[in-house]
Amino acid sequence: MRIASISVKGEPALGVRTPGGMINVTALDPSLGSSLRALLERGPDALKALAARVAEASGQQVVADTEFRYRPLVPEPGKFLCLGLNYVAHASEATYETPKHPVVFTRLPSSLIAHGEPLVVPTCSEQLDYEAELAVVVGRTGRNIPKERALEWVAGYTLFNDGSIRDYQKRTHQWTLGKNFDGTGPLGPELVTPDELPEGARGLRIQMRVGGEVLQDATTSDMIFDVATVIADLSVAMTLQPGDVIAMGTPSGVGAARKPPRFLRDGDLCEVSVEGVGVLRNPVARAAE
Amino acid sequence: MRIASISVKGEPALGVRTPGGMINVTALDPSLGSSLRALLERGPDALKALAARVAEASGQQVVADTEFRYRPLVPEPGKFLCLGLNYVAHASEATYETPKHPVVFTRLPSSLIAHGEPLVVPTCSEQLDYEAELAVVVGRTGRNIPKERALEWVAGYTLFNDGSIRDYQKRTHQWTLGKNFDGTGPLGPELVTPDELPEGARGLRIQMRVGGEVLQDATTSDMIFDVATVIADLSVAMTLQPGDVIAMGTPSGVGAARKPPRFLRDGDLCEVSVEGVGVLRNPVARAAE
Repeated sequence: MRIASISVKGEPALGVRTPGGMINVTALDPSLGSSLRALLERGPDALKALAARVAEASGQQVVADTEFRYRPLVPEPGKFLCLGLNYVAHASEATYETPKHPVVFTRLPSSLIAHGEPLVVPTCSEQLDYEAELAVVVGRTGRNIPKERALEWVAGYTLFNDGSIRDYQKRTHQWTLGKNFDGTGPLGPELVTPDELPEGARGLRIQMRVGGEVLQDATTSDMIFDVATVIADLSVAMTLQPGDVIAMGTPSGVGAARKPPRFLRDGDLCEVSVEGVGVLRNPVARAAE
Repeated sequence: MRIASISVKGEPALGVRTPGGMINVTALDPSLGSSLRALLERGPDALKALAARVAEASGQQVVADTEFRYRPLVPEPGKFLCLGLNYVAHASEATYETPKHPVVFTRLPSSLIAHGEPLVVPTCSEQLDYEAELAVVVGRTGRNIPKERALEWVAGYTLFNDGSIRDYQKRTHQWTLGKNFDGTGPLGPELVTPDELPEGARGLRIQMRVGGEVLQDATTSDMIFDVATVIADLSVAMTLQPGDVIAMGTPSGVGAARKPPRFLRDGDLCEVSVEGVGVLRNPVARAAE
């Protein structure tokens, strides 16, 4: 199943992408609500109910692609944890050692944007950079989750572009500020449930394309810490909750490490793709003065 | 005015501390709601309405101290930004250079606890450490806020204990994981509006006491980056919003820097105090196995 957070005529809704188009499931059955986080908080039966409702829908409440807009897949996650340096070649190009433990920082909801919305070059910097990432959405509450069972906590997978203002990221040793500018964190377009992908979303080609040019190209098997390892590790510190997002880090090829550097500029078009998960597409625009 | 997030018979409410005791303002006037963040989102007139309602109350809806519990002052802030190394002597004891820019990391809502709730020593570490901090609650939406006017964005001040699991904080170069263990972030007890304090909360004595012993003792004038500077600086990156929290960093004297180190253990009692803001008191307990 492919679930989306959308808005239809300005009203938030949940959508499910089917071969016949995007179904507005909130209109189909208002009891399902319009919030993916709230739906996940209701437990695994809620996803089953959603699937059943969609199976019965047979073409009802299909909204044309011109009639809805995407919202960030989880607009207000309780936690948005990001991994840094989780691909060996990227750690190397960023001139860091290969990490012995997951390197963790966070994204604030205020920085998140939807599939299709512009990535914003701020007025204070020319160094907006792209990072193609696989992201995990948590489906269940858990603490001290054993690695062998950790994938049971995955509600699904999606795409993230960890847009980074490099000069602000490196202004001090803590990266958070440069990772949280308004309008720099596209998340989506859809949640793909695990049954549609290989276990742990391993072995999938991941790319970043800017204006069609392939600037990052790797496979999710290149991750140093895989999805199960990361879920188990993070849950030692904190209770994972439905709707939490974990971004799994980016492969090599970021703009800052290129010679000459290739930062994003007004008019660029970014595409993050992971095989089987989809394409997350965002134009780049300069902030209003 | 001193505003608290409380619960009365298990129901969330807003309280205002008066000389006659804590008034349950949600019971007094349900239109005020029970969420501090939602109240602040309604704009400055909502705080004025609250003050007027409390002035008229004349002893109605006072709840005895035994009849309510505190909740974290802002249980689900949109952003919780923390400053590191914002006092020269602490930067030095932590063996970092004095920062040239604010060092920023974040707290997740899942780590926040209330005044009176136990600070939790996790099963995986013996290195729970205290950090007394002044915290700012944002009252208005703003981006690129000029420093000269930045204090207009302050709804009030409160206290924070930035409980840190030091071995996890230093496991990699990014501190986030060790700063976000469940049950390690007491926030409160009350929001003190700026009219009750010196401008920018400067010149106030700040202390951490553990079991009555003074382990941190400084003044808020020792901060490298003051409140106005920090608000202006953060707002270059992101839109500040009502209910956002900014923790201003801790002075020297943390447990990890003592010889021998003084980590928190089951049975300790932590008290953060800032003159005029109050006392944030939390016992320490070991996590259930």
